[in-house]
Amino acid sequence: MSKQTQSVAAAIDELKALLGERLSQSMAVREQHGRDESWHRPALPDAVAFARSTEEVSRILAICNRHRVPVIPFGAGTSYEGHLIPVAGGISLDLSGMDRILRVSAEDMDVTVQAGVRRKQLNEYLRDTGLFFPIDPGADATIGGMCATRASGTTTVRYGAMRENVLGLTVVLADGRVIRTGGRARKSASGYDLTRLFVGSEGTLGVITEVTLRLHGRPEATAFATCHFATLKGAVDTAIQTIQMGIPIARVELLDEVMINAVNRYSRLDLPEQPTLFLEFHGSAQGVVEQARAVEELAVANGGGFRWSDREEERGRLWRARHAAAYAAKALRPGCENWATDVCVPISHLAEVITYIRAEADKSFLPAPVLGHVGDGNFHMAIVVDRNSPEEIAEAERLNRLLVTKALELGGTCTGEHGIGLGKREFLLQEHGEGVAVMRAIKQALDPSNILNPGKLFVPVASDVAGQG
Amino acid sequence: MSKQTQSVAAAIDELKALLGERLSQSMAVREQHGRDESWHRPALPDAVAFARSTEEVSRILAICNRHRVPVIPFGAGTSYEGHLIPVAGGISLDLSGMDRILRVSAEDMDVTVQAGVRRKQLNEYLRDTGLFFPIDPGADATIGGMCATRASGTTTVRYGAMRENVLGLTVVLADGRVIRTGGRARKSASGYDLTRLFVGSEGTLGVITEVTLRLHGRPEATAFATCHFATLKGAVDTAIQTIQMGIPIARVELLDEVMINAVNRYSRLDLPEQPTLFLEFHGSAQGVVEQARAVEELAVANGGGFRWSDREEERGRLWRARHAAAYAAKALRPGCENWATDVCVPISHLAEVITYIRAEADKSFLPAPVLGHVGDGNFHMAIVVDRNSPEEIAEAERLNRLLVTKALELGGTCTGEHGIGLGKREFLLQEHGEGVAVMRAIKQALDPSNILNPGKLFVPVASDVAGQG
Repeated sequence: MSKQTQSVAAAIDELKALLGERLSQSMAVREQHGRDESWHRPALPDAVAFARSTEEVSRILAICNRHRVPVIPFGAGTSYEGHLIPVAGGISLDLSGMDRILRVSAEDMDVTVQAGVRRKQLNEYLRDTGLFFPIDPGADATIGGMCATRASGTTTVRYGAMRENVLGLTVVLADGRVIRTGGRARKSASGYDLTRLFVGSEGTLGVITEVTLRLHGRPEATAFATCHFATLKGAVDTAIQTIQMGIPIARVELLDEVMINAVNRYSRLDLPEQPTLFLEFHGSAQGVVEQARAVEELAVANGGGFRWSDREEERGRLWRARHAAAYAAKALRPGCENWATDVCVPISHLAEVITYIRAEADKSFLPAPVLGHVGDGNFHMAIVVDRNSPEEIAEAERLNRLLVTKALELGGTCTGEHGIGLGKREFLLQEHGEGVAVMRAIKQALDPSNILNPGKLFVPVASDVAGQG
Repeated sequence: MSKQTQSVAAAIDELKALLGERLSQSMAVREQHGRDESWHRPALPDAVAFARSTEEVSRILAICNRHRVPVIPFGAGTSYEGHLIPVAGGISLDLSGMDRILRVSAEDMDVTVQAGVRRKQLNEYLRDTGLFFPIDPGADATIGGMCATRASGTTTVRYGAMRENVLGLTVVLADGRVIRTGGRARKSASGYDLTRLFVGSEGTLGVITEVTLRLHGRPEATAFATCHFATLKGAVDTAIQTIQMGIPIARVELLDEVMINAVNRYSRLDLPEQPTLFLEFHGSAQGVVEQARAVEELAVANGGGFRWSDREEERGRLWRARHAAAYAAKALRPGCENWATDVCVPISHLAEVITYIRAEADKSFLPAPVLGHVGDGNFHMAIVVDRNSPEEIAEAERLNRLLVTKALELGGTCTGEHGIGLGKREFLLQEHGEGVAVMRAIKQALDPSNILNPGKLFVPVASDVAGQG
């Protein structure tokens, strides 16, 4: 038995004593915790620990840190960048059982939840308060996972991302110490912004167990429209001009013609197979009409056909189809996976970047529908690949590299919302240069034994191996 | 000559060779760089270095790091917490000469400036673009200083604080390395959020030399009103209800009767000497009227007298008086200074906290007018003290401790916008507990010799002494 294997066995013994049946080594459970929704190859954890409280997480980490065994936080399993794949083995720490809503204040419009609460569960809970939690990454992710990846999504153009909507966190550090960051005040200048440091740290600096979130008032009125265009540029320009005019649109989602085709098939719709915007407006009854009319004018000037959807039922069907777009893309090639690109660029460059990569992808042998949160300058190309085919992976890598290189040239980022995980580690370096050395210094200071989600975010170097930090 | 004195002398020799006359040892210049606008006692730097570029800052830091000589970044000198006072001597690094606006994009609504640009200068520059930079801490601070202290102010209720409005930074690290954090994309999930780590780091982790900021569209229309109340509670409740109703007010500033009295005297006004709200609304011509009418209704129900100010000239006079309120407070006792408290609490607790401390202060022998950004739950008590009187300092400390303790009990923070600096170091520990150990670990990782603004943020311990890290 190798030294690493011995350590893992010893840690598992202690974890069993602590958790009983909530420490699982069954193959089915390990397999379920070894894969996400991305193209990345699954890998097995040695065991899965199901935690129920911050104190338990603290004990689990203290044990694993002592034995230098990797710990990979697990929420809903909806990562797109392999965040939760135990590439170095170790313990998958499942927080989905920590699903209690701890307090809510309608007066202060905030809520504190355990990390395993899912966003739909939270909004269901809030239904009678007149408040809602708007961040919508598509998947029904856990709030803890959304913090860890700095998630955003369809409503960020209006309500901000997790970065803006997390007020405070409870975090368990690698050695089991528990800290509380931030607080309930709307702003603070009290010390380093640890909240923002842990938001987006991808489980590499600590395990988030509780989250205090800002809530927002439900809009008095909502309006919805779709708008299809003869050209991709017409659709993107409409989105850009909407933002530049300061119209406070709540959602502005682009689906290109390839994606509309996939969505039509998957969700049994008959949308015109053209580049299309899904638009949503929040405000007063009069306000939403004013906003929508203003966008309609822009759309028409850009060659678009603007179509109001007044009926709740139709609106629900269309948004469900939008949210299922990733599955619709996959369904183009059964048995294949999405390689989701994720660049975000200054909005003035958005049309240039999308039309560039659309033209490149059209020359490729892989289907690659585009969808995006274009109001933020963020979009995804869902390259549909067989992950067992080296040729296909190489082709997806080639397309993604073209796209990221272009985005970085234009002041953008390699990932708007999915995170670095396994798939964009080399681009982290390309994007931030010497800044990555600062990130590594922080990682080293907070997790000297490198037990927290090792292999993610940074391209591994020899000294990173867990247990040898 | 002590070892420290020798090091400083050696560093100064090298800095002179680098900067020529832009390295000053004149007493007048040192004195000017040894004090801020707070009650904290001045202290002298050994010399002042006037930097012109990021590269120069990099060389200055490399020299000082080699000799383990403290470096204290200096902008406009408007700190309220002693941030720029060289308590351990060393080099005051004056960035006010780095005052160029490097680029602006009206299309992307962003701008990149050198750290020494002042906020009024920036808005003057932007005048013809239809855009503005809204963050308004009162003083005409530098953008770099506003980043370093995580500033906010009167418009944060509508436009956010520096935390929300900084897109990216150029930062020089302690050893002279230069990093660029963030970028121009509106959102990113690419690695640790170093931008937010340096925003609010008070010059202790690096020297900010360039800043990319979000800009906002100038509102189509602006409305302004004042509203005086029989009771403090009436005024605060009106502010709270305004926020809770989701009225997107641009400014809602409270001045209590003691502050109105001071402002009347200082700015020669004749406002009724009652608790008063200064209100500003931004939006469409119709929107601002709707917003103001809604607030008027709340104010009247809370016993307030609502007074529109239609004339631009009157509005300007009133805002100038508001911005001079700190000076008005000081003028109550010529030769004295403001001890500015700065708590921020969840808004549902705001009335409780303000009425509590108002009653305590009314029993004190020190004048202590209150003003605040009440829409955020943030307010200041300007305790006017003779800083040479130990009794007065002790009394101000007593009042501030009562206030901070109450705010922390209610989920608030010891500082909403002024920062920790020298004055709130013990409360940092009270507020964050073990989190301070994490902050110290980060400080140690990025500035192992503790040359960057030593003595600020953390209660010094023996190992903190610059040159002995």
